[in-house]
Amino acid sequence: MTRFREHSQGAMKSYREELWFQTKTRRAYLNITPQVREAVKKSGIREGLVLVNAMHITASVYINDDEPGLIQDYDAFLEKLAPQAAPYRHNETGEDNGDAHIKRQIMGREVVVALTNGELDFGPWEQIFYAEFDGRRRKRVLIKIIGE
Amino acid sequence: MTRFREHSQGAMKSYREELWFQTKTRRAYLNITPQVREAVKKSGIREGLVLVNAMHITASVYINDDEPGLIQDYDAFLEKLAPQAAPYRHNETGEDNGDAHIKRQIMGREVVVALTNGELDFGPWEQIFYAEFDGRRRKRVLIKIIGE
Amino acid sequence: MTRFREHSQGAMKSYREELWFQTKTRRAYLNITPQVREAVKKSGIREGLVLVNAMHITASVYINDDEPGLIQDYDAFLEKLAPQAAPYRHNETGEDNGDAHIKRQIMGREVVVALTNGELDFGPWEQIFYAEFDGRRRKRVLIKIIGE
Repeated sequence: MTRFREHSQGAMKSYREELWFQTKTRRAYLNITPQVREAVKKSGIREGLVLVNAMHITASVYINDDEPGLIQDYDAFLEKLAPQAAPYRHNETGEDNGDAHIKRQIMGREVVVALTNGELDFGPWEQIFYAEFDGRRRKRVLIKIIGE
Repeated sequence: MTRFREHSQGAMKSYREELWFQTKTRRAYLNITPQVREAVKKSGIREGLVLVNAMHITASVYINDDEPGLIQDYDAFLEKLAPQAAPYRHNETGEDNGDAHIKRQIMGREVVVALTNGELDFGPWEQIFYAEFDGRRRKRVLIKIIGE
Repeated sequence: MTRFREHSQGAMKSYREELWFQTKTRRAYLNITPQVREAVKKSGIREGLVLVNAMHITASVYINDDEPGLIQDYDAFLEKLAPQAAPYRHNETGEDNGDAHIKRQIMGREVVVALTNGELDFGPWEQIFYAEFDGRRRKRVLIKIIGE
């Protein structure tokens, strides 16, 4: 069951970059893999970990397939579990995004990806998505890379 | 879409700390951001990653807003999806916390946070919570920091 | 609330290993803690972080109890939320695993575990599981360790 091992050793480096988004719709699903790859390249780091996280609490970063039907399935699933129009205690504060805080918890805040030989260490279909649940305003994703 | 980049390089350091809790209620949601900030300060690490995880399997660590209505929404959502009083095969072992194991999976075990310039690299509303789903006994959270 | 602190400092190392699986059933839950422990030992790394992630997008890696009733509870919960036989837009592409993509998002893609004194830094009941939601073919888990 075990295959491919590798060791390396050196000085630690870190790299940080923000991605900014303003989606046109309240909910949106954006494939940000190219931007993360670009950040990895700029970092010059070859072995380590890449953290990619939403910096806002009504958005997610997750890894799955870039297939439009699947994205519709996710959206329908999340809207069924936490409908936008349902009553939320959070909305009594004047907000209207109680559903978005729940949708984000289901899909998660962050992904951590291995960095090997200067590349995202991915299986065949892994793609990094930014999932927006309360868009139409400027929001950020953080990329932090540590390694050597 | 890209803003703010930064490089650094040095020797790797690590730091470990446990937080202990005993909640008075079965379910509770505690903002532990101050304790994590304190650990970061004590670590002396300025660039890296901070892992914060529940060490027990009926509790979560997650990041979202510190707003009482939202916490009520999360609690109601989790109790609807996995009610405490529903039958669980796990409870046939003599346990009564089958619901808590499911609630914890929905909210997650851990968060990984970027550490930049000696601070938690957070968006405007991000707060770290310990979510207890089977409390009233001593339980632990682990903080592990690696970086330079 | 604070107990046990520790510092260390050194050169950064990394280690990578893949685990391969082919489950006999469509859904399966495998305790992979022994394989991860073995990888940690082989890495020679004593302080750091261990990332364990599914390399496929219809499988999860999660941490919880190794108790057969609990695993039945998880499976029933996931099948209720995203039944295999329900209609999915994703399945219109010719796939039949729309449910598996949703189940995986609920249970998560990855875990990040602290590595302390050369051991997985675990609470008393934490076990690492590979959860397969579309099995009966060869699929992989990645272990990436960084530290010193």
